[in-house]
Amino acid sequence: MQQKYSSKKAAYTRFFPLIGDIRRADKTVLSQDVLAGTITAILLIPQALAYSLLAGLPPEVGLYASVLPPIIYAFTGTSRTLAVGPVAVAAVMVAAALVPYAAGDPEKYLNGALILSALTGCIMLAMGFLRLGWLTNFISHPVLTGFTTGAALFIVGTQLAALTGISVPKGASFAMLLQTLALKIHTYNPVTAAFGGVAVVLLILARQPLVIALGKIGVKQQSAVIIGRTAPLFVVITAILLAGLIDAQGNFDIAVVGLVPQGLPMPSLDFMNTEGWVELLPAAGMIAVIAYVESISVAKVLAFRRRQKIDPDQEFRALGFANVAAACAGTMPVAGGFSRSMVNFDAGARTQLAALVTALFVGLAAFLFTDLLENLPKAVLSAIIVVAVWQLIDIKGLKHTWSYDKGDGVAQGVTLVGVLVFGIEHGLMLGVGLALLLFLYRTSRPHIAVVGRIAGTEHYRNIHRHKVETWPQLLLVRIDENIYFANTPRVETELHNLALDSKITDVVLILSGVAYIDTSGLEMLETIEQELSLSGVRLHLAEVKGPVLDRLCGTRLYERLGEDRVYLSIEKAVEKLNSAS
Amino acid sequence: MQQKYSSKKAAYTRFFPLIGDIRRADKTVLSQDVLAGTITAILLIPQALAYSLLAGLPPEVGLYASVLPPIIYAFTGTSRTLAVGPVAVAAVMVAAALVPYAAGDPEKYLNGALILSALTGCIMLAMGFLRLGWLTNFISHPVLTGFTTGAALFIVGTQLAALTGISVPKGASFAMLLQTLALKIHTYNPVTAAFGGVAVVLLILARQPLVIALGKIGVKQQSAVIIGRTAPLFVVITAILLAGLIDAQGNFDIAVVGLVPQGLPMPSLDFMNTEGWVELLPAAGMIAVIAYVESISVAKVLAFRRRQKIDPDQEFRALGFANVAAACAGTMPVAGGFSRSMVNFDAGARTQLAALVTALFVGLAAFLFTDLLENLPKAVLSAIIVVAVWQLIDIKGLKHTWSYDKGDGVAQGVTLVGVLVFGIEHGLMLGVGLALLLFLYRTSRPHIAVVGRIAGTEHYRNIHRHKVETWPQLLLVRIDENIYFANTPRVETELHNLALDSKITDVVLILSGVAYIDTSGLEMLETIEQELSLSGVRLHLAEVKGPVLDRLCGTRLYERLGEDRVYLSIEKAVEKLNSAS
Repeated sequence: MQQKYSSKKAAYTRFFPLIGDIRRADKTVLSQDVLAGTITAILLIPQALAYSLLAGLPPEVGLYASVLPPIIYAFTGTSRTLAVGPVAVAAVMVAAALVPYAAGDPEKYLNGALILSALTGCIMLAMGFLRLGWLTNFISHPVLTGFTTGAALFIVGTQLAALTGISVPKGASFAMLLQTLALKIHTYNPVTAAFGGVAVVLLILARQPLVIALGKIGVKQQSAVIIGRTAPLFVVITAILLAGLIDAQGNFDIAVVGLVPQGLPMPSLDFMNTEGWVELLPAAGMIAVIAYVESISVAKVLAFRRRQKIDPDQEFRALGFANVAAACAGTMPVAGGFSRSMVNFDAGARTQLAALVTALFVGLAAFLFTDLLENLPKAVLSAIIVVAVWQLIDIKGLKHTWSYDKGDGVAQGVTLVGVLVFGIEHGLMLGVGLALLLFLYRTSRPHIAVVGRIAGTEHYRNIHRHKVETWPQLLLVRIDENIYFANTPRVETELHNLALDSKITDVVLILSGVAYIDTSGLEMLETIEQELSLSGVRLHLAEVKGPVLDRLCGTRLYERLGEDRVYLSIEKAVEKLNSAS
Repeated sequence: MQQKYSSKKAAYTRFFPLIGDIRRADKTVLSQDVLAGTITAILLIPQALAYSLLAGLPPEVGLYASVLPPIIYAFTGTSRTLAVGPVAVAAVMVAAALVPYAAGDPEKYLNGALILSALTGCIMLAMGFLRLGWLTNFISHPVLTGFTTGAALFIVGTQLAALTGISVPKGASFAMLLQTLALKIHTYNPVTAAFGGVAVVLLILARQPLVIALGKIGVKQQSAVIIGRTAPLFVVITAILLAGLIDAQGNFDIAVVGLVPQGLPMPSLDFMNTEGWVELLPAAGMIAVIAYVESISVAKVLAFRRRQKIDPDQEFRALGFANVAAACAGTMPVAGGFSRSMVNFDAGARTQLAALVTALFVGLAAFLFTDLLENLPKAVLSAIIVVAVWQLIDIKGLKHTWSYDKGDGVAQGVTLVGVLVFGIEHGLMLGVGLALLLFLYRTSRPHIAVVGRIAGTEHYRNIHRHKVETWPQLLLVRIDENIYFANTPRVETELHNLALDSKITDVVLILSGVAYIDTSGLEMLETIEQELSLSGVRLHLAEVKGPVLDRLCGTRLYERLGEDRVYLSIEKAVEKLNSAS
């Protein structure tokens, strides 16, 4: 049924799809890739600076994360258009893990980021090679949405301080952040707030309103969106010029990015000598899972638009290599960013060649333009973060989920609140644990229906929902779920209770909805059969699926029932049992 | 569908079923109960002494566990015939928890046992009142069998030392036990070994061979079994007389029970002042679950034989009260014993009055006969333990499970080996964790089939298993599992891959096997529908179950599909889509 990903291709194109892609591509495709890569770079450079500040790291670290890791992904990933680099949620998870770990030591903090990247990469590689990608399935959509919303609110909270120039303690909880901001509101820096506020307004205008305005003067929708997405770079350049002009740091004491080292660091394995690997392992595990889930969801959406395939296990490996590369390149964990990949796709990227072009431009920027960043007010970067993560906040979704499914709504709400109250990591664990518990609860309560025949037909339906024929000596029970240990005790209890009526001489179990019976289920059925037979009642099976029947053959249950008491259809069972009595 | 347990009865009979039972019963029933209670007491007294030694406690503690706790259960439990008291597996779990806890201090050890009882009781009460009994479903039969077999082997190992008079360190692992026994084999005490060996042989003979012999001389099967089950008491009495006669302790240095305090202790809450509640909590949690699972399985079997009902939540509460009572009565955790309950049932017990009679006799014994126990060789009690737990060892079951289901076989084997290698508690946790992981893995891979029409019928079957008609522009996909977050990513990937063929214009999802779609599943379907529609493919649903359709109404998916693209049967969908094209 399921086709293995590109099993017929040569090994090198399987593990390095990019090479095959470029060999197959014509000139139009390649020139489109160059254009898309350039546009993505324009979006990425300010984001990279911002997200490294969000992670509590020097701004250049974000640039490093945008060069080597996406190049590695370009050669190993199966998505043609995923743009890998620093992302907001992973950045805030890095900060949450490193503030307690480093305890104020900046060198330890930076080294911790490299260890996190290396651990995240190794965990991803292990998941990819051991084909454990299915474990990430256990983060349900509601939990992920709740988590992202909570993390985004938390990020906005932290950035409010930088936007207004109010100082808050590092690693403060959400409640403490709000409290500090409220108490210190009078200490705000008006010039910082002006830079931040104007930047926020411009960035918001650049989204919907600018696109609409451009549309009115005849610019195509797609081009308008792309122009809007390049706005952050123009805001950054304007802010640098303005801040330099008025000497914002000297005259108004506003926080600026400051000196940024030129160029890229040589790849190095020095971080391996640092301690703290075990301490940072749980955080790395969570970053790995969240980074993977974020990347794979956007990769899937984009791949499907062009009817291409994604190999989830190879994605885990590719992101793993990218994160190990991040550690060697002296930077933070990376993932496939949603908005960035969308821009890349919309700008016409066809292969990962676009990512190589983006990396080239970011690398050039690191060599040529770092001097310019000295005067960039940090409040502008905060504005970029706030506007970027604001779209992740999904409160309407919570209402939506609640109205569709109460259990999922509770899981989503608890995750959101948990992230704000107990912090990023504990909130996520709480949500995943709760969702799993609710899931187990649900599977432990299968739907069991007593059925009867709709007069004049061969259709059998729930006696409580339809007007049906029944026979007092005959109990027809349909089990609407696989029978396995999670629901075995309940099925047993229900069957016991249903068979209590002493008029009953024959019980027919209808297994049309059962695709699997595990050992616990089999033993339960054997016990039920023996107990029923002790009290003079015979058990029959009807509509057993092929694979289930194959497994049942050779069991004690099947030996006792024999072919006589296993029927293809309910109708045949009813016919025979009614004629016999 | 499901009937609430005795919801129509008055509250007092609901919470105290015994009162109603006795009021309804006639004299025959009551006299049968008195007889059954007496026979059970004969079995219970030697078992109670033996199991308290197994738990590392003074022998009288087992007697205390057989008086107040079963009385409490008699008034609160819903099983008419469950015999509550000390059980082997719980006893060895108590020892496993208390040896490291008490570190050689006997007073701390005894107090620890009371804390364990109290905690076990409180956990059971919480599970009962919060209706969390379903959590115990997650101990699958194979894990339970593996655990019981491992625990029984471990118990036999510990008792080999007592049976032969070889001294081994307390709290030794299974490997260390075997090693010590092998190294110290020359230090065995011949008289101890003789007492132990003869007792084992007699007890084994009393099971099958004696029953068969009695049958041959005309005794009824049931009576013969009951006579066989009273053998331990006769073995104990004979051993006491013999050991007294030869002054076994003085002349041959064999371990005897020694002085046992007369009577029963006054119920007390002194144990509450002891420390260690948090330390013993995990062990108590596991004892609570295992004790409950053991009790409820035998209670269910016995109840069903007389077509009576068990209320699983009330059972949790009743066992919880019994264990809290055990703590107050100065004794160890209790549960419903399998062999004991069987004897009680076979001897004709109809109500819990039998348990009151048993408790009365054990209480009398504690007042009148404790002096007699002084000369009882401990090896005889070990013999009783070994013969009792030997039947729990189920190696054949492991082969059986493996041949039916490889995953279950692995879980069972790992639990068994885990108990022996890592100890009782860790082995159990390992097994439960592994079974849960295998279960999650299984549910994350639903069966998805592309179907076609069997020519000339309205039946649609898997294209890989049957010769069927298909249409190039039409993809008919049947999903054979509820769609929820655990399998959503896989369903999405498979649907993506199946829909890659550019000839396809319509995809029909057949949901006949889907009883539930959670929020993650719904969002996945919405995404798939939008993506398909972007590439000019329409999504349709067929055979949606009533409850699923009810929930889908009002969602964005349903709004987009409308009634037009939701079909009652596959045939109708195929008809319409073929006529349209």
